[in-house]
Amino acid sequence: MAEEAVDIFKEFKEHSVAEFFKKNRHMLGYSGKVRSLTTAVHELVTNSLDACEEAGILPDIYVKLEKLGDEHYRLTVRDNGPGIPPHIAPKVFGKLLAGTKFHRMIQTRGQQGIGAAGVTMFVQITTGKPIHLKTSTGDGTVWEMDIMIDVMKNEPIVKNKTHYPGNWRGTEVIAEMKGVEYNKGKYSVYEYLRRTAIANPHVNIVFEDPEGKIHTFERSVFEPVKIGEEAKPHPFGITPDDLVTLSRMSRAKTVGRMLTNSLHGMGGKAVIGMMQVLPHVLKKEPSKLTWNDAERIVATFQAIRYLSENKVAKKIVEEKKEDLTEEERLHFNNLKKYAKTILGEEPTVEKVYKVMTPLLSIRIRGPRTDVLVPIGEERIRKSLRANLQPQFVAVVERKPKVYSGGIPFQVEVGVAVGGKIKSFELMRFANRVPLLFDAGGCAITEAVRSIDWKRYGFPDFFSSPVVVLINLSSTHVPYTTAGKQAIADVPEVFNEIRAALMEVGRKLKEYTSKVSAVQELLQKKKVLEHYLPLIAKSLAELTGEDEKTVENLLKKMVEERYKKINELLAKIEGESA
Amino acid sequence: MAEEAVDIFKEFKEHSVAEFFKKNRHMLGYSGKVRSLTTAVHELVTNSLDACEEAGILPDIYVKLEKLGDEHYRLTVRDNGPGIPPHIAPKVFGKLLAGTKFHRMIQTRGQQGIGAAGVTMFVQITTGKPIHLKTSTGDGTVWEMDIMIDVMKNEPIVKNKTHYPGNWRGTEVIAEMKGVEYNKGKYSVYEYLRRTAIANPHVNIVFEDPEGKIHTFERSVFEPVKIGEEAKPHPFGITPDDLVTLSRMSRAKTVGRMLTNSLHGMGGKAVIGMMQVLPHVLKKEPSKLTWNDAERIVATFQAIRYLSENKVAKKIVEEKKEDLTEEERLHFNNLKKYAKTILGEEPTVEKVYKVMTPLLSIRIRGPRTDVLVPIGEERIRKSLRANLQPQFVAVVERKPKVYSGGIPFQVEVGVAVGGKIKSFELMRFANRVPLLFDAGGCAITEAVRSIDWKRYGFPDFFSSPVVVLINLSSTHVPYTTAGKQAIADVPEVFNEIRAALMEVGRKLKEYTSKVSAVQELLQKKKVLEHYLPLIAKSLAELTGEDEKTVENLLKKMVEERYKKINELLAKIEGESA
Repeated sequence: MAEEAVDIFKEFKEHSVAEFFKKNRHMLGYSGKVRSLTTAVHELVTNSLDACEEAGILPDIYVKLEKLGDEHYRLTVRDNGPGIPPHIAPKVFGKLLAGTKFHRMIQTRGQQGIGAAGVTMFVQITTGKPIHLKTSTGDGTVWEMDIMIDVMKNEPIVKNKTHYPGNWRGTEVIAEMKGVEYNKGKYSVYEYLRRTAIANPHVNIVFEDPEGKIHTFERSVFEPVKIGEEAKPHPFGITPDDLVTLSRMSRAKTVGRMLTNSLHGMGGKAVIGMMQVLPHVLKKEPSKLTWNDAERIVATFQAIRYLSENKVAKKIVEEKKEDLTEEERLHFNNLKKYAKTILGEEPTVEKVYKVMTPLLSIRIRGPRTDVLVPIGEERIRKSLRANLQPQFVAVVERKPKVYSGGIPFQVEVGVAVGGKIKSFELMRFANRVPLLFDAGGCAITEAVRSIDWKRYGFPDFFSSPVVVLINLSSTHVPYTTAGKQAIADVPEVFNEIRAALMEVGRKLKEYTSKVSAVQELLQKKKVLEHYLPLIAKSLAELTGEDEKTVENLLKKMVEERYKKINELLAKIEGESA
Repeated sequence: MAEEAVDIFKEFKEHSVAEFFKKNRHMLGYSGKVRSLTTAVHELVTNSLDACEEAGILPDIYVKLEKLGDEHYRLTVRDNGPGIPPHIAPKVFGKLLAGTKFHRMIQTRGQQGIGAAGVTMFVQITTGKPIHLKTSTGDGTVWEMDIMIDVMKNEPIVKNKTHYPGNWRGTEVIAEMKGVEYNKGKYSVYEYLRRTAIANPHVNIVFEDPEGKIHTFERSVFEPVKIGEEAKPHPFGITPDDLVTLSRMSRAKTVGRMLTNSLHGMGGKAVIGMMQVLPHVLKKEPSKLTWNDAERIVATFQAIRYLSENKVAKKIVEEKKEDLTEEERLHFNNLKKYAKTILGEEPTVEKVYKVMTPLLSIRIRGPRTDVLVPIGEERIRKSLRANLQPQFVAVVERKPKVYSGGIPFQVEVGVAVGGKIKSFELMRFANRVPLLFDAGGCAITEAVRSIDWKRYGFPDFFSSPVVVLINLSSTHVPYTTAGKQAIADVPEVFNEIRAALMEVGRKLKEYTSKVSAVQELLQKKKVLEHYLPLIAKSLAELTGEDEKTVENLLKKMVEERYKKINELLAKIEGESA
């Protein structure tokens, strides 16, 4: 008998986000004994690094792991950062989705206001204990407190709050965990900190492992990393939903003013240009902007972008060309789609050109480079050379791009080949944070796999002695999960990583070609040298010269002929641009 | 100059879970044009199937996709389910983390109270429009309404709510989306529905594609799937945190009563046995249960499990053995660890045996099979034979197991080889829902990759004509993301999938051995047949018999000798257990 809907829905309930993540803790990276421990270290260390960079402090991070029993550890993470004001600290560690970073377009490691409270939750559900916090903003008072989470309400519970005078500044978190395990493998705390040091040469890390052994990763750069400034969304990546949301908060008098105030790269001139196409929309009060208006603005931005990126499209608009080749027809049809949205009707050829013409002269600046903080081409090269001692290094730093929502991002790729490298390794980073887990589901891994490396001289790339380092910088890294270990397959990001890999591939091709050329020449030389005594003998008989003299002469000729080999070898050992 | 902590934290804010998932929509599966569309279909279809099964209705699902413009589609999903009461509908579609399923230990496809509202959110941010809902519980009144989400508050906004008399029962959702694309590839809506039909032979699905073509997947089973009953947590998987949470809600008079009431498989006899070990804890009022008490109870459960699963451990306790072999020493040390937690001190040998002895006779029933709803061994075999027409099929249905939190799960594996299968394919399912995306980051994929298939007669498994179907049933599937496309690497689940694959591998080995044997015999037969005329001629000359007669005689002998081939071939074509 069919159950009634009333019965089925009588258990309908609402839940807190803390309940959700308690039940789905693996989404935060708490699955597996080794991984859970590394996740906790990652959350606390990235918070420390973010805080130091924001405050302009050279970070000194101290990490200690003590084994208290079977699968039972105590973790201490201490920094010399700016500290946390005592009235805010409970929410930082005791409430999910609370933080300074979530709503800002700024490149920080943390983004979601989940990490620190996630550690508290994990400590609580494995040991029943709070985390212990000690912090001071350097105002002469040190605060200590125990923090737990009221899971049903997603609110902090604070106990044993004390304060006392002290001249220390920084934050220290002590977190006891069960059901975790430490080892030295590729997913370990040690490996995590080692890779953090590779991508952050301005950081000093001291790690005391469970055996009491102290590992020091010393800084090699003595200038703090400048934190990226807060970025405005870029017009080429904005969506109608973004514009409507903006318009509801805007205090500008007109939509046109709102665009120059709220978006990056929009000068007054650009708005004047757009006024010729969308006069009524841009003169509206922002509060009156409709979804349809927003779609028309977005289509205009997209048309501007299209015309600035496609010379053929630009040319047919400039010439108002009617008799189109197949290629021109393709571009025309794309422009027609934009025109249709802008005009709200199927446009005639004449109308397409009429709408597009004023857009030709509009210039919108690219996304600001200075909001992104890449590792830097030179630092990657030095880091790879120093840490891996390879035979050859190629580095590519791509220009910043945007993905949906106007979010700037930038891809860096470094490839090191040969020398002391013995096997293939892919090192993934996002905003200089190592990604150790979930390699399989990551856009970075997919992009590397999607390249036809044979083209670049590697018949079997993934068995070659190659280290590939890829760092994605963004004000909002599109992680697949709140556990922040894999990049989602956002097409713009995926394609940009591929483009970077192909660019670096061309540099590798130069290297592999030289290696092949050398191998070929060496082979030829070997053959010649093999027959040389025989030839020398025959020549000596023919000419009546001394056999040894002839042979030496021939040897010299061969050496001369193949001295190119040494030149090539020297080039291979050298740097690539 | 270092920025002050006060400045850094002045922007500290709290956020709604709707804001979080709006910004991280890819975590819900909304990334990529094709995937976003498939995700929306998936969310609505699984809700329909769950509702029908819960109400005991044979599901009729109608899915229609209309192309409205460039990357612009209208999706309609209609079912004959129980309908949604009109006062609850707004929260189902307009509030994240609200639902009937989140808090229950019951095997449904949906679990998190996010899916339906996620569709509304995606519709809203791509088109600015609400979803349209039509529903009736069959009480003579049909309700229609438009639903959106107030993102800042995570609350529904309802407009145009109307009702009228009508004798229909079911739910219909119309959702318009932009930035999506339909195709017929392996990630498409079509493929999703096809696989849903393979794993759910009791469902009727009619799909009208954007070209107006109608695809019908007809039911072959005419009995509704019985919904699993709600499961109690199992003692072997429970954590201290679970026990403390239970104790705070329990109305039982003692902790002992609480355990029999709230946990599965715990009879009065089991509690009496445990009373000998933990008398004070089990006599407590539940509200007074401490974390430490909870840890002692969990250690007792673990010790009971250990003794029931390890014969050697059982034996040394029974004999109170003091002189231990190396293997026995290992088991003793594990028991000692449990005893240490139970007693709260480092135990003597005598004390270890004293604590363990009463546990020997305690029996805790395994998790209930009837709360899980697997596809079924026979249905998998039939479905694979009917859909793929292979040469050989092997199916393994493992017994239910538990993972952390006392959550029951069960693994089914079907492998089809040869016949009309031309290439390798892995079909992943969770609770009979096809998982099309994120194959790389999924424990199922990892488990398949981790098997040494050479052992089972496949030198190059992933290039062989093989289809592997794996279905994970659970009351709480550990998805890696809220997008529900990949299984997290929970060790118990991963190991169980591996065990199922190895079991199926042994069946495959029988098949591949037979194939090899046949190939070998065929080869020998071929050689004999090649020389047969020559031998016949020599024999004819020797014996004076007619050459043709001798040859026919020899041919018969060879056929007789190798008729085993046909027997073997018949076996290969047949079924495997």
